Amino acid sequence: MSSTESQKSSERRRILIVGGVAGGASCAARARRLSEDAEIIIFEKGPHISFASCGLPYYVGDVIKEEKNLLVATPELFRGRFNITVKVRHEVLSIDRKRQVIMVKDLESGRVTEESYDALVLATGSKPVKPPVPGIDLPGIVSLRTIEDSNLIRRLIENGKVKRVAIAGGGAIGLEMAENLVKRGISVTMVEMLSQVLSALDPEMAVPLQKSLIAHGVNLCLNNGVAGFEGSDDTGVQAVITKSGKKFPCDLVLLAMGVRPDIGLAKAAGLELGKLGGIRVDDRMRTSDVRIWAVGDAVETRDFITGEWTLVPLAGPASRQGRIAADVIMGRESRFRGVQGTMVCKVFDITAAATGANEKALRAGGKLTRYEKVYLHPGHHAGYYPGAKPISLKLIFSLSDGQILGAQAVGQEGVEKRIDVISMAIQKGSTVFDLEEAEMCYAPQFSSAKDPVNMAGMVAANVLRGDNPIKHWEDLTDSTFILDVREPFEFNQGHLDGAVNIPLPALRSRLGEIPRDREINLYCAAGQRSYYAVRILSLNGFKVKNISGGWLTYNQQKVRE
Amino acid sequence: MSSTESQKSSERRRILIVGGVAGGASCAARARRLSEDAEIIIFEKGPHISFASCGLPYYVGDVIKEEKNLLVATPELFRGRFNITVKVRHEVLSIDRKRQVIMVKDLESGRVTEESYDALVLATGSKPVKPPVPGIDLPGIVSLRTIEDSNLIRRLIENGKVKRVAIAGGGAIGLEMAENLVKRGISVTMVEMLSQVLSALDPEMAVPLQKSLIAHGVNLCLNNGVAGFEGSDDTGVQAVITKSGKKFPCDLVLLAMGVRPDIGLAKAAGLELGKLGGIRVDDRMRTSDVRIWAVGDAVETRDFITGEWTLVPLAGPASRQGRIAADVIMGRESRFRGVQGTMVCKVFDITAAATGANEKALRAGGKLTRYEKVYLHPGHHAGYYPGAKPISLKLIFSLSDGQILGAQAVGQEGVEKRIDVISMAIQKGSTVFDLEEAEMCYAPQFSSAKDPVNMAGMVAANVLRGDNPIKHWEDLTDSTFILDVREPFEFNQGHLDGAVNIPLPALRSRLGEIPRDREINLYCAAGQRSYYAVRILSLNGFKVKNISGGWLTYNQQKVRE
Repeated sequence: MSSTESQKSSERRRILIVGGVAGGASCAARARRLSEDAEIIIFEKGPHISFASCGLPYYVGDVIKEEKNLLVATPELFRGRFNITVKVRHEVLSIDRKRQVIMVKDLESGRVTEESYDALVLATGSKPVKPPVPGIDLPGIVSLRTIEDSNLIRRLIENGKVKRVAIAGGGAIGLEMAENLVKRGISVTMVEMLSQVLSALDPEMAVPLQKSLIAHGVNLCLNNGVAGFEGSDDTGVQAVITKSGKKFPCDLVLLAMGVRPDIGLAKAAGLELGKLGGIRVDDRMRTSDVRIWAVGDAVETRDFITGEWTLVPLAGPASRQGRIAADVIMGRESRFRGVQGTMVCKVFDITAAATGANEKALRAGGKLTRYEKVYLHPGHHAGYYPGAKPISLKLIFSLSDGQILGAQAVGQEGVEKRIDVISMAIQKGSTVFDLEEAEMCYAPQFSSAKDPVNMAGMVAANVLRGDNPIKHWEDLTDSTFILDVREPFEFNQGHLDGAVNIPLPALRSRLGEIPRDREINLYCAAGQRSYYAVRILSLNGFKVKNISGGWLTYNQQKVRE
Repeated sequence: MSSTESQKSSERRRILIVGGVAGGASCAARARRLSEDAEIIIFEKGPHISFASCGLPYYVGDVIKEEKNLLVATPELFRGRFNITVKVRHEVLSIDRKRQVIMVKDLESGRVTEESYDALVLATGSKPVKPPVPGIDLPGIVSLRTIEDSNLIRRLIENGKVKRVAIAGGGAIGLEMAENLVKRGISVTMVEMLSQVLSALDPEMAVPLQKSLIAHGVNLCLNNGVAGFEGSDDTGVQAVITKSGKKFPCDLVLLAMGVRPDIGLAKAAGLELGKLGGIRVDDRMRTSDVRIWAVGDAVETRDFITGEWTLVPLAGPASRQGRIAADVIMGRESRFRGVQGTMVCKVFDITAAATGANEKALRAGGKLTRYEKVYLHPGHHAGYYPGAKPISLKLIFSLSDGQILGAQAVGQEGVEKRIDVISMAIQKGSTVFDLEEAEMCYAPQFSSAKDPVNMAGMVAANVLRGDNPIKHWEDLTDSTFILDVREPFEFNQGHLDGAVNIPLPALRSRLGEIPRDREINLYCAAGQRSYYAVRILSLNGFKVKNISGGWLTYNQQKVRE
């Protein structure tokens, strides 16, 4: 494009977008819908725009059979449908903010040109975290960010060159890859520095995922960072060495230790950055330069719950931000309301989902210390209809007014549905009392007359109303009397040391066996019968607390330790 | 129970509950959780309490194998767990409000006793509608309200005595029974007076259900009321005769024409009734007598959207109302917020769900005439992941402020999830702009970066912002220019008579073919490409309207006619 062509009239604004995957593509398309006159150009370093990056693990796993299925849009489609120029294999080298131009390199020809802008949008995305450990640059250490990455791994699997893969990192991509590799007959080791996988969850909620990984043959190594890699340039990587000195032989390493905002361009141009390493933008997605916007993985954004800056590299928010940047460039009053971090991840038979703040974030934030949490384990649909599977639900809420702060759910079916509903509730500032009264679809294949969402609201509301004082397993002390109100056959299959068993139906006639000078802590399988017992005992003048989530939650926590 | 036993102190209140299925059982259990002292007695005419009435069709269909699975709770469980006396096979004959006593007949012994109350709760439920037509009392005309009803039908099927069943009524029970009977090899005819099944939906949204019934061999006869039945006391019913004179031979008739509140007791006691034939209660579930409460199918309640009185015989609201009545009896400040009518019904491969007001209700109500609706047909998850099924969504919203008034969805997967989210949104007074910004769980098996809920919000918000002026198929006139922006191969497979085909990618270069003196009405397959075309044309000065839902909605409507 010559400098003559790039000259603009006031009629014909020139919008340049750096990066064409999620936020960039949605920004471009939206901008065109608001103006037929603007000149809109996307520069994308890679060979594809708008591809389904969330589908890459499933393409590796051959669930998605063909590369073309991953191409949500092509440069041709953008040209035909939106009159948008897409320049793939074009790398933006630098921004001259004063002159409002960028330098662009055509990676095919090597030619560098200058492009002027009226508005510039940085959708530069993120880069995989690459730890500075010995052997990190060995052949066979890959990440999964592009279609090319996944084609490489597919080829290695199909050629029989790779039998053992070590996955460094237990986040969503690592987990989804573990499943897909196992399903292709690969032996998988997962090495994770933290004590849990999927850090969007609190540790006890990740346990069912960990159990499932192990049950499906994944060699799961938690609490163990990567210290280095063995191998040579000839052999490629041959083993992962952990910080505790363990050695896991492998033919390929997948780096899945998370991502970092790709801010090279922004930094070099002197745009303001945040403390977390992302580009600083306002709620209109504008950077510290009024003519430059930034969206997607590259930016820091506000946590909707805590108000803190956060990095949330998810496609949904990126796409929303892209639209908002386009709106603002075109003079509209759009604002980004922040992110709740609503997410879902399925691994083998287990689905985990979350929205809002988790306990780790609330503790770290420090602002919102007055929260409480409840655990419950309702069936995903009516128990009388065959096939009901339990969902482990954790609801976190404000002790002052019952406002919902976050929720996490793990189970086999209907997990993300409940989190979606609670996500909507959080968006509208709902309380646990609102969940009690929510009207959910009920037919026996789908739910119960009291949906798990209602149940979560009721359990939490009972806590706030003082009807169900609770305690958590981690807070038990020796000074309390522990009462197990399950049936004897359940008690005999496993119970807390020192717990006394009085089944709920016998409780009223055996009140004399319960001390009045100590706090009574009750539990049952999941917390419902013990709630009934709490009511009986507190109405009879005992000091009682229900252990939230009961024996099921205990076992989740115990396995973790 | 003698009159001596029924004498009460101020400490020991006596709460009598008439009816022990959904609302009655939940009221009793809740009351006990709030008081250990109260005497609580449930009188239930039938042999069971708290059974899974929503499971009955699936018990007939042998999906639920054993009767005992339907018994959510038993009198023994109520006694042991809640210290609640349950008197099954006890019919309450009358209420003496002045003396605060009821007359109760033990249906086993025939003995009638008097029981005094401090608080009386009527959870008398509903009765099937039984039209006064010739032959209505013939043997073999049954309804499905109790476990006994379903055992009878099971037995007749298993004995081979029933090969052909006529279902009178196309509501949820009729539909679920049609599926279950077909799966047991029964030949099914469904006769429905209205032009559609499942009247919770607007007619065009019911079409996929009707297609599915027909595809699975159900002989569906719409727009045709039941005029009478043929048969004799010896042979039993042998045929249904419709108002149009059609005759459908059958061995059994299932009456599924809806239910009416069972208000015999309340009416005889002079309690205030509503115009719809239900017991009148306030938002604390109190009747016109301050010592009598009523809950469940028997009462009229407020529609959350329209504010009108309504009858909503669903288990979820009944259970909530039972809790609220118990709270109020025990001196708490609970209030029932009204019903949204959130419901789901699955028939063969098709699930239909709805929440809030439908167009029929809005038109009938008259208050909320300033509404608009949009149709869309998004996939239930990402299109690039195999197995995505379309959901047909209809969103109804206020034209003045975008408040969501109702939603309906029909499809194969993920249908009720979207309605649950929108139900939560409606509960909190959300607008379509809130749906745009909703943060939903996204992984390719579950959703798209823009969930159908987001898409619905965006389409509606684009209408309200004036970016996407819409029109509906039923409002087309001859004076407009109809533009089909699909590809020629799609156009050639079927299009509106008189429509001109200019595919979206060619539109910008063929603007000269489009008249400027007339309104242009555009459509594509589902409304997305035509929205892009609307933007191009309106930014170029044309008068345009997008036909909401496109060709897919057209076909839904056409099949109906």
